[in-house]
Amino acid sequence: MNEITGKTKLFALIADPIQQVKTPQAINRLMTQRGFDGVLVPMHVPASALAGCVAALRGMLNFGGLVVTVPHKMAIVPLCDELTEAAALVGAVNVIRREPDGRMIGDILDGKGFVSGLDKHGITLAGKNVFLSGAGGAANAIAFALAQAGVQQLTIYNRTPAKAQAMISRLAGIFPNVAFKLGSANPAGNHLVVNATSLGMAATDALPLNVEGLSPDQIVAEIIMSPALTPLLAAAQARGCRIHYGAPMLECQIELMAAFMGIGK
Amino acid sequence: MNEITGKTKLFALIADPIQQVKTPQAINRLMTQRGFDGVLVPMHVPASALAGCVAALRGMLNFGGLVVTVPHKMAIVPLCDELTEAAALVGAVNVIRREPDGRMIGDILDGKGFVSGLDKHGITLAGKNVFLSGAGGAANAIAFALAQAGVQQLTIYNRTPAKAQAMISRLAGIFPNVAFKLGSANPAGNHLVVNATSLGMAATDALPLNVEGLSPDQIVAEIIMSPALTPLLAAAQARGCRIHYGAPMLECQIELMAAFMGIGK
Repeated sequence: MNEITGKTKLFALIADPIQQVKTPQAINRLMTQRGFDGVLVPMHVPASALAGCVAALRGMLNFGGLVVTVPHKMAIVPLCDELTEAAALVGAVNVIRREPDGRMIGDILDGKGFVSGLDKHGITLAGKNVFLSGAGGAANAIAFALAQAGVQQLTIYNRTPAKAQAMISRLAGIFPNVAFKLGSANPAGNHLVVNATSLGMAATDALPLNVEGLSPDQIVAEIIMSPALTPLLAAAQARGCRIHYGAPMLECQIELMAAFMGIGK
Repeated sequence: MNEITGKTKLFALIADPIQQVKTPQAINRLMTQRGFDGVLVPMHVPASALAGCVAALRGMLNFGGLVVTVPHKMAIVPLCDELTEAAALVGAVNVIRREPDGRMIGDILDGKGFVSGLDKHGITLAGKNVFLSGAGGAANAIAFALAQAGVQQLTIYNRTPAKAQAMISRLAGIFPNVAFKLGSANPAGNHLVVNATSLGMAATDALPLNVEGLSPDQIVAEIIMSPALTPLLAAAQARGCRIHYGAPMLECQIELMAAFMGIGK
């Protein structure tokens, strides 16, 4: 990577634990490739020290931005000076840009990363009917991005229907042109079927939707990265569906994070 | 330099302005040479943000230490949890080590760096008579280190004699075996003559001592790095003295700072 000098712009990733993170490597590689004079370093900050850390970074004149991960994504929301519409809706932030005047602007890129990952693999969304399983943070971020990408109909299924209904109410106010529906576990009749729950990470997990309803004309997409081939994707493949892995969502976020923090091409 | 991962220990240099600093380059080079998994980054912190920044670094679990420079060397003293004897005497800190429990321990290495620089050039101090011009922060740090290195007699000259006298009183309490004397501008009769003022940085500066008193058996040492050959050193050379430049004092501090912050060989 580039030599660090007094002119180098500082970026950080904030997490607890921190040893497992891979984003510093990816963003530093990108800065080197682009000849951008910056460095992204890990900051191991426990929840109790989060507010003080954000305040200090606000006052650090060569600080450019912050990648936020577990367990700080929700706790950091009230510490931002401004939120994007997606971050406000989801109630979570995974990247912050520091403006030259010190204002900290938070965004959540899970949804945009997911949509970019589909796009990179030639899967278009405009006018499509999409089935989404889940109503947590990731599901909210993805639903927002799918609506923004112009899907025609978005059916949301959750084991606790009230959470899915609340999510639909919030989204319907922002995207009047999208038909939001409360779904059952059956994904039949949709072009794209998305798992935005964590079901599939553990071998003993239940399936996130009823795979009997899948047909070969459907595309089935995951947000889980490990295992790469989840039980849902294996079942979809067995039924002749095209499958889309979880990895592209994170890969695409590296570029989106860099762009949001002003790490130019 | 080494790839930065989630396991990399974080170090910083804090300054305002920051663009001109050279310590990050030197310490990062040292860490690479030693195979130490760490990175030192510049933090551009104005005086108003200093206390918040130190508090945040105290709570950052992978933070190892801080190099402190202009204008923070005195203001950071009350923000430390513990000071070395030299830092307490001088009332300034230029390096902080963060202990695993978060305690921030401040030291000042100007004096040790100066003594190490002499040592590297074969100039010994035990039993010697030394003349020191100046009674500011650098002079205090150097006087402390000279006394610690076992000089026999230390004569201190300052344009404001009261400042030199106060410095002698403080030092005499700590080093009863050293003969401290309040000096005139005449450095005659000493083995080593040291300029620890900033006189000589500007072309229009007065000389920091009476060069008429210099003789070929004396060594004359500077702390000023730019210009390398100050008017004092030029006059000393013309009188047949051995001269010692200002650069080694800083060069030696890089290794001392690394050692103090636990950046192992």
